[in-house]
Amino acid sequence: MADTTPHHPHVVVVGCGFGGLAATRALAGVDVDVTVVDRENHHTFQPLLYQVATAGLNPSDIAQPIRHIVRKQDNVRVLLGEVVDVDVDAGTVRTPHDTISYDYLVLATGATHSYFGNDEWAEVAPGLKTIDDALEIRRRILLAFERAESTIDPAERERLMTFVIVGAGPTGVELAGAVKEIATVTLRDDFRLIDTTTSRIVLVEAGPRVLAAFPEKLSASAERQLAKLGVEVRTSSSVTDIDVDGVTTETGPIPSATVLWGAGVAASPLGQAVTDRTDRAGRVPVTSELTVDGHPNVFVIGDLAAAESEGSDVPGVAPAAQQGGRHVARCIEADLDGTSRPVFVYKDKGSLATIGRSKAVADLGTRLRFGGYLAWLVWWAVHIMTLIDFRSKFSALAGWGWQYLTGRRIARLITGTAHREPG
Amino acid sequence: MADTTPHHPHVVVVGCGFGGLAATRALAGVDVDVTVVDRENHHTFQPLLYQVATAGLNPSDIAQPIRHIVRKQDNVRVLLGEVVDVDVDAGTVRTPHDTISYDYLVLATGATHSYFGNDEWAEVAPGLKTIDDALEIRRRILLAFERAESTIDPAERERLMTFVIVGAGPTGVELAGAVKEIATVTLRDDFRLIDTTTSRIVLVEAGPRVLAAFPEKLSASAERQLAKLGVEVRTSSSVTDIDVDGVTTETGPIPSATVLWGAGVAASPLGQAVTDRTDRAGRVPVTSELTVDGHPNVFVIGDLAAAESEGSDVPGVAPAAQQGGRHVARCIEADLDGTSRPVFVYKDKGSLATIGRSKAVADLGTRLRFGGYLAWLVWWAVHIMTLIDFRSKFSALAGWGWQYLTGRRIARLITGTAHREPG
Repeated sequence: MADTTPHHPHVVVVGCGFGGLAATRALAGVDVDVTVVDRENHHTFQPLLYQVATAGLNPSDIAQPIRHIVRKQDNVRVLLGEVVDVDVDAGTVRTPHDTISYDYLVLATGATHSYFGNDEWAEVAPGLKTIDDALEIRRRILLAFERAESTIDPAERERLMTFVIVGAGPTGVELAGAVKEIATVTLRDDFRLIDTTTSRIVLVEAGPRVLAAFPEKLSASAERQLAKLGVEVRTSSSVTDIDVDGVTTETGPIPSATVLWGAGVAASPLGQAVTDRTDRAGRVPVTSELTVDGHPNVFVIGDLAAAESEGSDVPGVAPAAQQGGRHVARCIEADLDGTSRPVFVYKDKGSLATIGRSKAVADLGTRLRFGGYLAWLVWWAVHIMTLIDFRSKFSALAGWGWQYLTGRRIARLITGTAHREPG
Repeated sequence: MADTTPHHPHVVVVGCGFGGLAATRALAGVDVDVTVVDRENHHTFQPLLYQVATAGLNPSDIAQPIRHIVRKQDNVRVLLGEVVDVDVDAGTVRTPHDTISYDYLVLATGATHSYFGNDEWAEVAPGLKTIDDALEIRRRILLAFERAESTIDPAERERLMTFVIVGAGPTGVELAGAVKEIATVTLRDDFRLIDTTTSRIVLVEAGPRVLAAFPEKLSASAERQLAKLGVEVRTSSSVTDIDVDGVTTETGPIPSATVLWGAGVAASPLGQAVTDRTDRAGRVPVTSELTVDGHPNVFVIGDLAAAESEGSDVPGVAPAAQQGGRHVARCIEADLDGTSRPVFVYKDKGSLATIGRSKAVADLGTRLRFGGYLAWLVWWAVHIMTLIDFRSKFSALAGWGWQYLTGRRIARLITGTAHREPG
């Protein structure tokens, strides 16, 4: 940018998810100029995206403009734009309109869903990574019920009232539970010709159990809780095809008008701009300082990094990204102070996954693993506390309280002009 | 629909705005079967659309699923679909997928904005009639500031920070006031390179005064209040062209990247399906019972009707549509009772228009005309009371309270994938 002359080292943070935002905030008070570049104008609280997709929360409950979050941090400027290339030798990143020089680069562009080479599935089975994804999924779920109400063909009606979620990781499990709740509680009284409580929700998983990243005991608990809700869980069941008619698995077809993708993730393609040694998932192998080998001023954090901590792989979860972001700030501070950089150590604070209203599993260390209502309360408290500022907390709290008491979901609007007309 | 056999007279209500919804609700307890057909799944509280467009409220604060509103009214079913034709001789309406027979038809499809034959302006100067319109306008306003922050060309920056609103009716005046508030209060601290408080907001009106439907005294008050806010008002100024560079008026060009259309309205084209005598604005002339001449079972209400009451034209405002809807129900009831139908009488309860935070004008009869803070309080109270249900009231109240105290607008998200990248 021709109109800025930084006197301090210039840190460019690409991507403002949990990792990029943590790095930016941790650089407050450090003598650097920070430029945050993101292709969205907002930071999204991804763990609650499924609530937007299932009409429980409004987009603005879980997303805040990045500018607004950092408005009081004087050493930060924010640019809306997509970084399309990095030149680590020249020390520049490129957007379609600008070339920006950096002294330090923090690459935190995360991951997106992967269709394992079947990119044509993307159109019929949307994944859930952004607010726009969530609004698209909400539109599809609500439209399916509308179309079911207006069709007179019983087979077509059954297809419209069958929802298949592919992949039983945390997102898939959350979506399955929430869609089931919409069908059995929220919409129960709204339709005349269909009985929404008879909807089928099928959760298909290629692996042998749901929530594979959790201990086996909790996977079994989650599976029991899903069954109790009325979600059909099909583990060890690979998807071989997805098209407008539905999903085909090894054991046969499941006719369905609404397929949601909660399966594989692939790292952002920007990783390939900083190394030619990305791993199978597209992640960038990093040093114990979270830098690219040979480029101590290029940090990679969050889901885009293949990092190790004390001999173990660091998982692709929000707390790891946040800890990575804060580690970067400490390294840059050490450089400015002329001291040696710390080594990154990941602190596992446990995992939580919610399943439906009042249902969840919690893994808070080997002696603290449990499912059910208590786990759900913990999940809820943690997420309310972590939401980005007071207004979001207040609004989400009010929305959830209302939803919990009444079973109603506040944001049941079909928006977006494409495919508005039932067909 | 092959699968329903109505035993009662079948009333088909097309369009579920203020008129259609009032007719539907007033038919509760009447021995008829009602089918409501709308191309959206939600009823929109249009007077507050400008708050969604200017990031002050969430879509779900001012819109509710139609099914949900009528869920307790057993004689109503709701169909999502667009009526594309009416056959008044056969007594049927047609959607792309269905033909629906009626005994009574209530046509309430309202009006949309009109570009006076310059349909190519629609792309660069969106109007405000639906939730999708509001989200598109919100996206454009917020993106303009983002682009201004990242350009280094002073002329382009000025163009990006100039907002032109065409048409100084209630919608145009509300938009102008709200955009000014965004620029001077909401975004004040968010940017580094631009000073949003220097943004130009220009309100262009072809007629000699703003809010032409109000008494002259109140137009003058509104104009003073707008000037005090810092909105440039240009009356008696016709727009001759609009393109990507901005607006051209008779007195010269106004370079602007964001043009919003608050001018003419044209009635829904469906009017032409029930009469070949639509007026210049496309409205259907109706009898004193609000029916189409020669078709006593075809009612036309709201903005689509050219109605008279006690010798005067009925204005195209929400209360007139609601009164029309209730009148229809009384006529149908009279038919079922074998009594004679009432004549439609419009009761004018006054008009309100808001201009910005704490600013408005109120016309509540010849002796009760005033502007300023008191008018704004009246405006606010009326709109809170009229919002469709408790949850919306509560949520809108909370959102507005927050906004009023802090100047922050809660829903400042750029969503929609098209044009995401600043260019």
